[in-house]
Amino acid sequence: MHYSKLFIPTLRDDPADAETVSHRLMLRSGLIRKVAAGVYSLLPLGLRVLSKIETIVREEMTKAGAQELLLPALQPAELWEETGRWQKYGKELVRLKDRHDRDFCLGPTHEEVITDLVRKEVRSYRQLPINLFQIQTKFRDEIRPRFGLMRGREFIMKDAYSFDADTAGATESYRKMYAAYHNIFKRVGLHFRAVEADTGLIGGSSSHEFMVLAQTGEEGIASCTACDYAANVERAEALPPKKKQASETEAAPLESVSTPAKKTVEAVCDFLMVSPDQLLKTLLFVADGKALAVLVRGDHEINEIKLKNFLKASELNLADKATVEAATKGPSGFSGPVGLAGIDIVADLAVEAMAEAIIGANAKDSHYRHAVPGRDFKIARSADLRNVIAGDSCPKCQGLLQIHRGIEVGHVFMLGTKYSEAMKATFLDPEGKEQFFVMGCYGIGVSRIMAAAIEQNHDDHGIIWPQEIAPFDVQVIPVQEKKEAVVAAADSIYKALCQKGLAVIFEDREERAGVKFNDADLLGIPYQVVVGQKNLDQGLVELKARKTGEKTLISVDKVVETLSEKYALS
Amino acid sequence: MHYSKLFIPTLRDDPADAETVSHRLMLRSGLIRKVAAGVYSLLPLGLRVLSKIETIVREEMTKAGAQELLLPALQPAELWEETGRWQKYGKELVRLKDRHDRDFCLGPTHEEVITDLVRKEVRSYRQLPINLFQIQTKFRDEIRPRFGLMRGREFIMKDAYSFDADTAGATESYRKMYAAYHNIFKRVGLHFRAVEADTGLIGGSSSHEFMVLAQTGEEGIASCTACDYAANVERAEALPPKKKQASETEAAPLESVSTPAKKTVEAVCDFLMVSPDQLLKTLLFVADGKALAVLVRGDHEINEIKLKNFLKASELNLADKATVEAATKGPSGFSGPVGLAGIDIVADLAVEAMAEAIIGANAKDSHYRHAVPGRDFKIARSADLRNVIAGDSCPKCQGLLQIHRGIEVGHVFMLGTKYSEAMKATFLDPEGKEQFFVMGCYGIGVSRIMAAAIEQNHDDHGIIWPQEIAPFDVQVIPVQEKKEAVVAAADSIYKALCQKGLAVIFEDREERAGVKFNDADLLGIPYQVVVGQKNLDQGLVELKARKTGEKTLISVDKVVETLSEKYALS
Repeated sequence: MHYSKLFIPTLRDDPADAETVSHRLMLRSGLIRKVAAGVYSLLPLGLRVLSKIETIVREEMTKAGAQELLLPALQPAELWEETGRWQKYGKELVRLKDRHDRDFCLGPTHEEVITDLVRKEVRSYRQLPINLFQIQTKFRDEIRPRFGLMRGREFIMKDAYSFDADTAGATESYRKMYAAYHNIFKRVGLHFRAVEADTGLIGGSSSHEFMVLAQTGEEGIASCTACDYAANVERAEALPPKKKQASETEAAPLESVSTPAKKTVEAVCDFLMVSPDQLLKTLLFVADGKALAVLVRGDHEINEIKLKNFLKASELNLADKATVEAATKGPSGFSGPVGLAGIDIVADLAVEAMAEAIIGANAKDSHYRHAVPGRDFKIARSADLRNVIAGDSCPKCQGLLQIHRGIEVGHVFMLGTKYSEAMKATFLDPEGKEQFFVMGCYGIGVSRIMAAAIEQNHDDHGIIWPQEIAPFDVQVIPVQEKKEAVVAAADSIYKALCQKGLAVIFEDREERAGVKFNDADLLGIPYQVVVGQKNLDQGLVELKARKTGEKTLISVDKVVETLSEKYALS
Repeated sequence: MHYSKLFIPTLRDDPADAETVSHRLMLRSGLIRKVAAGVYSLLPLGLRVLSKIETIVREEMTKAGAQELLLPALQPAELWEETGRWQKYGKELVRLKDRHDRDFCLGPTHEEVITDLVRKEVRSYRQLPINLFQIQTKFRDEIRPRFGLMRGREFIMKDAYSFDADTAGATESYRKMYAAYHNIFKRVGLHFRAVEADTGLIGGSSSHEFMVLAQTGEEGIASCTACDYAANVERAEALPPKKKQASETEAAPLESVSTPAKKTVEAVCDFLMVSPDQLLKTLLFVADGKALAVLVRGDHEINEIKLKNFLKASELNLADKATVEAATKGPSGFSGPVGLAGIDIVADLAVEAMAEAIIGANAKDSHYRHAVPGRDFKIARSADLRNVIAGDSCPKCQGLLQIHRGIEVGHVFMLGTKYSEAMKATFLDPEGKEQFFVMGCYGIGVSRIMAAAIEQNHDDHGIIWPQEIAPFDVQVIPVQEKKEAVVAAADSIYKALCQKGLAVIFEDREERAGVKFNDADLLGIPYQVVVGQKNLDQGLVELKARKTGEKTLISVDKVVETLSEKYALS
């Protein structure tokens, strides 16, 4: 393709409203344009990347035995009422009424539709297992759409659903998908980790997320430096300290200290010259209408998912100021467990192991030193209620945990019979008895992969596309487009590369060499062939690898062969 | 692929609610399943057909210089307000509000979104022409969704939009698309005609429809038996009769005849023993609130589009009973032009040419004979107001017109500056002056092609897929699946065909031969290779062409070569 004919509206400057690298670079390199908040057009270059990702996903899914179909975006409310998700899904579900005033939604996911299809069409265990997938536009009315394609309201997903006769079969289907996902993310050229994850609104018994590692990732990943354990920090188990801290001497009695206007852990530590792990934070929550106090060590964060699960609460919120003051009889910012009457105190496991702690005194500008759990206050119940942090012990091998940032690009779920029971989806087993299908579901954020790839692969000059998903393979750049010999040589290299089946941009614009080089680096095509008079006089052209920046002088005769080999080997 | 592993839920019997052949066969052969009225899932076999059509469309569009992108389905109301279509589009437009109560629609077409993109990104005549296309899911809340994929509420379209600097350029873009459409419909293997068409809600100066010829088509096509003229009957020009009918004698005076309860043309003709072309129909309409009478010959039908355009009316409806009775002072069913006071009488051109006619007498059970236009009643204005019928003269060459039924699968429009003016979409010409883009738009009903292909290619046994869009190329059918030699021979043919790159179904189900043959004919794969013991003993297999039903005995060694050639030649 000739650059001058391609619709690639690049931007010289960073767009103001783009917060992340991938969002900025996708706008600057003309991959996407915004139509509304969280709603984007994919321009020709962006669609080329998307199509390459789709092809890889499709091939690996098919290889793993899944069959592609295409379900509709419009879904009747009746199906969602069967599973109760019409109510539960809240405002993220895009709802509409048709001209006859019937309720529909735009599918954010397709468990209901696929289960309805399978319950009608699959009647015997002989037809199992079956795994059906689609690559389709999804809709989710995010409260805060952002980061371009990373968190949009309309996006492209691959979703697959497996149906098995029993749990053993479902486990095998899950394993196959897990393996297919490894192949997919490897082929698209990304560094990723599969981690244990929470099941959220989809539900089911267990799940793994596939995370692309990137500093800008929205998700935290805990992984072991010694074994292969990895989990979303939301989900990773924090082991209790091995034993209670030994206090060198018997703890001194509770002592009040003045801490004027020191409301945060940091402020108190600075003021008292202690480290955060010597503090104990007291947070007031309201769980299903009832207030309670939750204790964690000063250097730890409460994990609300763990807390909610532990309390078996349907609703959990931080208490407001009035509730805090009513429960503690003191101002917010100085809460502590001593003298709390009438409310439960629950604590993270690390709290029980503290020999003594600094705590709020439930009085303005005042803390206590030498507070001893058990002696100065009672803990009703303890559990793992916090996020793991770097340096925690691995729950699997006791090795050291490290924390990375990641972008979720895939998610596999063991659903069990959650949907088949709700929708009465059954088949006949060999004895002729009705059984519920055992299901799994498997998503990949196809358009998000594009953004994640850029987060992981870029430099100050622009995108560095992984070879496998680059919109084009090679960019041929004649630098003096007025010189006939230069253009003729570039053109013949261009044509020879096309002939070999490579996708090539011929940079035919009348621009200065500097502009061409900058735009080429911005677009991030893996290889640039620069054709200039001086090198050409010696029968040479320059081959630049975008990733390493390495420039090689190579003979005109060899460049096509060299590039063909790079692609044949990939 | 092995049949037993494929998700092809066939139905033995015709589904009750499917009215057309294609709808019935798509359900029976497991191509689609209904999710809601006008909303379907494409099952694996259906999606394979769709993908093949998409590939052909994509290749030909690209070859014609168009670039693919992907615009969102969600479109903000603001864009549609700029063109006034937010109001005009009516209930067919699927509307919704997001969580912040902002108005959106689901795109039934994308003129607004693409014009918005181009006005922001294309600034100079040097960037023109540009033609952008997408293959995408569209939404249209049809009042009466029906015929399966033929008239759905969610469907897949290819839509393209061209932007040129002037009308000459736009005409050239239009011509390229017209040629590309010819290539596309030829490659998908359909008999079609390009016909002149009305521009409807899309607007613009001229348009052509591409019609697949099929008896069940919803559209009438008039085409000349002598020249290449073809047009939608909605649009085809009806020439006036060459001269006024010569009456053999001077017409007799107006004479009242009793026609008890004869309200229709057919009933009056039978009763009076005359032919319909001797009658004159009088229909009362209300145009923008004003009643008028419209006259057409008894064998002609009024074309409301022509009438509306002629009257320059924004709203046109048949008058209700009360209005008819008030205007004619007689009962409905016996209206005629004699003695009508206070309302305009307009007539089709063929009426003026009648020497005399039988007309309603504006009185119960009563008609007049020998009514002479001009003598017995006055015609205010005459124009071409009727549909052409078979036997009419061609407006181009005076040859004879014939009428076919057709299914609209493509539509190309010369839009001119309708959208660019409404949305102030301009570029700078060589003199630095702002000019409006001159646009064209070009649609193909991708999912509808699948239905149209079946309407045109089927028999009593099932579908007969055109080779180019068949879901598979060959079905290999061992008829005694218990005999090892039969299965081994079938398997080795299957593998050899796959090796050659053909898409093959291996019929491995434990079913009777009759069931396998019936299902194979139903699915309509172009070639069946039947492997049985008796033929095999002589080194032969049977090759059946689904289209002709022709069965050939062919040596096992030759069958792979023969089939490869059929596909290489296609």
